[in-house]
Amino acid sequence: MSDAAVYTGRAAVRAGILVTGTEVLTGIITDRNGPWLSERLADLGVDVAMIEVVGDRPADLEAALERMAAAGVALIVTSGGLGPTADDLTAEVVGRFAGREMVLEDALEERIAEILRPLMSRWPELDEAAVRASNRKQAVIPRGATVLEPVGTAPGLVVPPAGSADDGGRPAGPTIVVLPGPPRELHAMWEMAVRTDAFRAAIAGATEYRRGILRLFGIPESEIANTLRHADAAGVGLGSLEITTCLRRGEIEVSTRYEPGDEADYERLVAFIAERHAGRLFSRDGATIDRQVAALLAGETIAVAESCTGGLLAGRLTDLAGASEYFAGGVVAYGNEAKISLVGVDPALIESFGAVSVEVAEALAAGARERFGASVGVGVTGIAGPDGGTEEKPVGLVCFSVQGPGGRSLTRSSRLPGGRADIRDRATTVALHMIASALGGERT
Amino acid sequence: MSDAAVYTGRAAVRAGILVTGTEVLTGIITDRNGPWLSERLADLGVDVAMIEVVGDRPADLEAALERMAAAGVALIVTSGGLGPTADDLTAEVVGRFAGREMVLEDALEERIAEILRPLMSRWPELDEAAVRASNRKQAVIPRGATVLEPVGTAPGLVVPPAGSADDGGRPAGPTIVVLPGPPRELHAMWEMAVRTDAFRAAIAGATEYRRGILRLFGIPESEIANTLRHADAAGVGLGSLEITTCLRRGEIEVSTRYEPGDEADYERLVAFIAERHAGRLFSRDGATIDRQVAALLAGETIAVAESCTGGLLAGRLTDLAGASEYFAGGVVAYGNEAKISLVGVDPALIESFGAVSVEVAEALAAGARERFGASVGVGVTGIAGPDGGTEEKPVGLVCFSVQGPGGRSLTRSSRLPGGRADIRDRATTVALHMIASALGGERT
Repeated sequence: MSDAAVYTGRAAVRAGILVTGTEVLTGIITDRNGPWLSERLADLGVDVAMIEVVGDRPADLEAALERMAAAGVALIVTSGGLGPTADDLTAEVVGRFAGREMVLEDALEERIAEILRPLMSRWPELDEAAVRASNRKQAVIPRGATVLEPVGTAPGLVVPPAGSADDGGRPAGPTIVVLPGPPRELHAMWEMAVRTDAFRAAIAGATEYRRGILRLFGIPESEIANTLRHADAAGVGLGSLEITTCLRRGEIEVSTRYEPGDEADYERLVAFIAERHAGRLFSRDGATIDRQVAALLAGETIAVAESCTGGLLAGRLTDLAGASEYFAGGVVAYGNEAKISLVGVDPALIESFGAVSVEVAEALAAGARERFGASVGVGVTGIAGPDGGTEEKPVGLVCFSVQGPGGRSLTRSSRLPGGRADIRDRATTVALHMIASALGGERT
Repeated sequence: MSDAAVYTGRAAVRAGILVTGTEVLTGIITDRNGPWLSERLADLGVDVAMIEVVGDRPADLEAALERMAAAGVALIVTSGGLGPTADDLTAEVVGRFAGREMVLEDALEERIAEILRPLMSRWPELDEAAVRASNRKQAVIPRGATVLEPVGTAPGLVVPPAGSADDGGRPAGPTIVVLPGPPRELHAMWEMAVRTDAFRAAIAGATEYRRGILRLFGIPESEIANTLRHADAAGVGLGSLEITTCLRRGEIEVSTRYEPGDEADYERLVAFIAERHAGRLFSRDGATIDRQVAALLAGETIAVAESCTGGLLAGRLTDLAGASEYFAGGVVAYGNEAKISLVGVDPALIESFGAVSVEVAEALAAGARERFGASVGVGVTGIAGPDGGTEEKPVGLVCFSVQGPGGRSLTRSSRLPGGRADIRDRATTVALHMIASALGGERT
């Protein structure tokens, strides 16, 4: 957080996020829904007052709803607890909390049954009666709630407080949006939820914000805090901007929320950062390096030969849909024998310079390009640790080479910090940035 | 979660975890301290009632402390807000909440100054007066608090409620453990905190628990819920067990917390699950499939040729330290040309059966084994989508082959659900399970 990241205090509507699940509370799985929902709400101009994680006990869930209501939030978004088993109780607890009777929706039961049919045929040994009972349970909802159609098998809900909406009275508490736990389902159903009348009514009065995301690579996080101080001193109007910076996979993300009328202030900030960090600001529109590399590879083909990253670079290059257009192939050449026989590295190079050397990285890049008949070749060789380091070549030393089209090539070595997983991940990111540079990706 | 995951209600001590930081609340960075602290507390027999994330506003922080105290927790652990800047306010807010006066500890101020000295000499342009003021601020602590020596520059605190400990009175609220936000510092200072008298006093009466973890593969999550219902009906004593089930990367994890005296109940549950899901229970000691495969590969070497998983299988096989002992190498053969020239797949096979076929998977496995001179070869070919599917070979169809030592081999095809990322991830997991089976990994 920087000095500039001062809360602007203009959002009139506050919300609470309630993540349920004993497996989240006990640390077995990491919650990703709370942060995701928080960002979405911020963009709608809703100020998130708290994210709370509780277990699956109805009493804890109910107590959390009461705490949030007492804190004066107008909206509560829950995730989890919509599954078919008996302890998936969110809908029932929310209904009781909102003072609404639970009713079976026949049409919804039938739609869920429709979704379950292919599952039943895939697992013929399933207990059909049990499945039907679960199905019925998921179709029992608070009277007056808006149903969000299931993306998995669980429907979501938007539950207005008793005495509002259909009853024409004054809201006696927060509107509650009930979403399932699996992120893929939650994301899709969130889009449905925000379009419902009940949701729009709950957040009426919130200011819609814009969000701009910049990405930089190759500077420490403290430098961006320093830059924001300088921007402030130089009279760039930061007062209207809510800026948050964070270090993610070795890249710095500068995320700024502002009102549409303050666009000019944001543009001045972007220009200030672009000038001060020339060559480091690689994304002005929030596009990730992965997407930039994919775009730059249009019309090209790429092949990789990697050692310490062990397949992760190939994995990341094939992450996006359509990767088969440009990804020719890869070799994970862990041992020297594989480097020589599969990628055609000259054994004399390994002998003279060692397997972890810029010379071998170059030979890996050239070999990958040639073996797969690609226009771009990438070589990565390094020491991910924890063993294998020497004084001269310590753990974290990684050598990279990109042999691009038209004779453009880049070779370098880096000493990367952290443990084995950090080094492998960071090396993959460095390689992607070098690929972008070799392909003429613009840095401002 | 299952019916059996009923809170047992025997833990006498409940705690709340309070994570502070606008950058966490707004979703810019993901909190890892909450889940980590939750696991540590569970193993001490302390029942975590909630994890709450709030921003850096003092009023929000104070309100959260009040909510937790009202919920009756005996212990609150906070993370974050101990830095040197003006908006790092946790110590002050906690002091006020606990009804304790803030006092400057001269000796602590001197110890922090000692820590800062090398920093000052490394960055000569730092404003010395500003650094000294920050230093002093960090040495102002609630009277009667136990200081946890800084691992970074910020000291932590264990703050007993007013009227307890040194005053000899009855506790009027929870004991608060105040820890810094950076995980490395938090972990080290947690170890100090649990050894303090103030902490031991706060959790007096907590039961130490045991935890058992089972892992199953190849059944849907609803089946394990069903099994637990049957176990209960069959008289296996589930009342003494707190069971949590979760689906992770296609595997089911059954995590059970119990008191040492209820070991026999747990053993009966394990036996029941093992009998009902013969061949699906692959881990009784919590070991992941990744660790099992690594252990089974002792004395062997493995090579992979993968298509749709795009390097992820190689990446997972090289994830663990020491992977170079057994991982010979891999080829990411996305196109047919690469399958033929780099792995030696017979073009006639591709012509007759198609690139996604069990025949080509077998040829990839055999080719990988031969090219890298390994004792185990693995081939994976499939359609990750979203494009490329046909009626006969839809998106999600993946063919696998493992050619193991001593002529043991396994070949199969699966139709995997979900989107591109799900299919790639799930296919990697399926391949690991097939490797374990081919190497004689026991399933009970």
